[in-house]
Amino acid sequence: MKSARPTLKSIPKSTSQPTPQPTHGGNLRWAAELVGCLPQDILDFSASINPLGLPDSAIAAIHTTLPTLTAYPDPHYQRLRQAIATHHGIDCDWILPGNGAAELLSLACRELAQHVTALFTPAFADYLRGLAAYDGVVGRLAIADFLTDGHSAVPKSRSLRQRLGNPSGSIALLLNNPHNPTGYLWARSQIQAWIEEADLVIVDEAFMDFLPADRDQTVIEWVQQYPQLVVVRSLTKFYAIPGLRLGYAIAHPDRIKQWQTWRDPWSVNSLATAVGEAVLNDRPYQQRTYEWLAIAKPQLETGLQQLGLDFYPSVSNFLLVKTAQSVPDLQRQLLQRDRILIRNCLSFPELGDRFLRIAVRLVPENHRLLLSLASLINPEVSRKE
Amino acid sequence: MKSARPTLKSIPKSTSQPTPQPTHGGNLRWAAELVGCLPQDILDFSASINPLGLPDSAIAAIHTTLPTLTAYPDPHYQRLRQAIATHHGIDCDWILPGNGAAELLSLACRELAQHVTALFTPAFADYLRGLAAYDGVVGRLAIADFLTDGHSAVPKSRSLRQRLGNPSGSIALLLNNPHNPTGYLWARSQIQAWIEEADLVIVDEAFMDFLPADRDQTVIEWVQQYPQLVVVRSLTKFYAIPGLRLGYAIAHPDRIKQWQTWRDPWSVNSLATAVGEAVLNDRPYQQRTYEWLAIAKPQLETGLQQLGLDFYPSVSNFLLVKTAQSVPDLQRQLLQRDRILIRNCLSFPELGDRFLRIAVRLVPENHRLLLSLASLINPEVSRKE
Repeated sequence: MKSARPTLKSIPKSTSQPTPQPTHGGNLRWAAELVGCLPQDILDFSASINPLGLPDSAIAAIHTTLPTLTAYPDPHYQRLRQAIATHHGIDCDWILPGNGAAELLSLACRELAQHVTALFTPAFADYLRGLAAYDGVVGRLAIADFLTDGHSAVPKSRSLRQRLGNPSGSIALLLNNPHNPTGYLWARSQIQAWIEEADLVIVDEAFMDFLPADRDQTVIEWVQQYPQLVVVRSLTKFYAIPGLRLGYAIAHPDRIKQWQTWRDPWSVNSLATAVGEAVLNDRPYQQRTYEWLAIAKPQLETGLQQLGLDFYPSVSNFLLVKTAQSVPDLQRQLLQRDRILIRNCLSFPELGDRFLRIAVRLVPENHRLLLSLASLINPEVSRKE
Repeated sequence: MKSARPTLKSIPKSTSQPTPQPTHGGNLRWAAELVGCLPQDILDFSASINPLGLPDSAIAAIHTTLPTLTAYPDPHYQRLRQAIATHHGIDCDWILPGNGAAELLSLACRELAQHVTALFTPAFADYLRGLAAYDGVVGRLAIADFLTDGHSAVPKSRSLRQRLGNPSGSIALLLNNPHNPTGYLWARSQIQAWIEEADLVIVDEAFMDFLPADRDQTVIEWVQQYPQLVVVRSLTKFYAIPGLRLGYAIAHPDRIKQWQTWRDPWSVNSLATAVGEAVLNDRPYQQRTYEWLAIAKPQLETGLQQLGLDFYPSVSNFLLVKTAQSVPDLQRQLLQRDRILIRNCLSFPELGDRFLRIAVRLVPENHRLLLSLASLINPEVSRKE
């Protein structure tokens, strides 16, 4: 474990900070307009996207598929579902492709709203948007209360229902694993108790792909055992296609069929479909990603430590960093002076203005960020450079 | 007016035909599997898509935009909304881009379900899926009852509420103009009375672009006058991009803001966004489309008449044709012998198995269809060929 790091327990549970635009990372148009440059001229650490860029297999699939844009997508998405099914060793009927994981999470929220939904905070802002869209009742559980400093589980002395204040009626859990923005990874054993207690459990594994198979904690294998379990996966982060939109849900076929009736039959575009089929089999890209992250992340962490910046242990491709100064100010300075975009955490009301989230990027890019941060955090550095 | 044509009044109001797969046109994968060929080897008359194919401006926009797929779409879709706003002479705040018109119609159905919704039948099957998804109460009005043989409006002697059987509470209308599958065009004057009577009116103008501006009957200009009016438009039919998905809604800004909270912030992919900005300004493609349709449609109609086939007067790029024989049989024969796909109308339960819908395609393609139909309807023709 790394030293000189704040514990998750030190996250304040609420602040009165307003949430300005943008609510999410990756809003390059907003950043570019602020600086007066092109979106592509900004070095983006605010969205946690694989910096290796579009896989060659994705580009090839797009070119091959272009002529078919004049036809509707297959409403059953049979080939894509088969590719996902093969990837996970599960049957096609258990899979629903989505227009990004975000579409599937909106469908999940419609169902979650039938229960009291436990949500660990700080939480991805779109969860709250989706739950509010169906007047869902949310029980916010501070993630800090569930973890010890060393990230081992606290004893399961209190049930989820008890932690929710013993609501009457059914309870559900919307869990993000690995957790955004902390990068914390819940172990399967921790999740199992919640699955057995709750009436519906949605596990958003948007960032799970960044863990090699021998270290991941996916609960996909349990979906056939627990009909109350749904796993949502994203292909946009690992395969660097957030502009194309692609994700999938894995759940009991009855639930898949119901969710399909809640949306139109063609929500995944044909290019995303073809790209999904291609990248799931792109072992070289997957391997290069693991190799990049294994080198780039520890280097970035060391660099942050040398700057005296504290951050949470993250299993994923992003880091939640604590600063002594106002992050919105720092964000503006980095953007205007160096065209570097970091994520402020104002959209996580529990975090306030002293936290920033950065994606791990390529080694030279991370170095550029560290140099910029150094000169802003300690002006002496920029004079020495 | 053309002769020897059935009147809309002759459409039977219901049958007990089961609805087989596929429910919608354009399911090339289903057809290809049935025949044992590639989807691109099928000549598709079942989906009403512009046969001029992808506009060059769309292809160029896709190539330019590919490198940006590694970034999230702008959640405000500011540039696309500006392009649509300029196209219609309306303000950006009144526009919501969608992942195909189908996504927007699903959002519309959520709101329609708060009322008793009048729907002219036969109707696009996904309207019923969308309304059922929110337990909407539907009042089916046979389109035949609203039209005289010559397609002039019947006197407005009965209100919409009276025609719905005087339900208590609020009423809404989901109108498809031009109407699919008949191709009938309601005049603005007919629609106005319904807008003034109903609490919510959604006008799906998916095929309105196929009418030149001097002949269309769009009610977009009324959206600012009637806050209860929403217009939904599709770019997938006219610009031949059903695989890419793109549509938009025009409505009061308060409604636009509410609908946005019902879905995630990135539902339109970046390629569709860029293509939308490009094709709305592609006057040459628009002009070529009008010129093609003005020639190809009358020729196809003449050919059908020469075969003794009756069809409804359509203002759009498709024709609803009545036959004396079973259309599913005819569909199978055309597919297996000639790899031509037509649309049977079993998914419109009011139509039964003696109706087919065909898109107008390029002149030589229409000729190929007519020859194939001739030989199947009258076997003598194939011997003469």
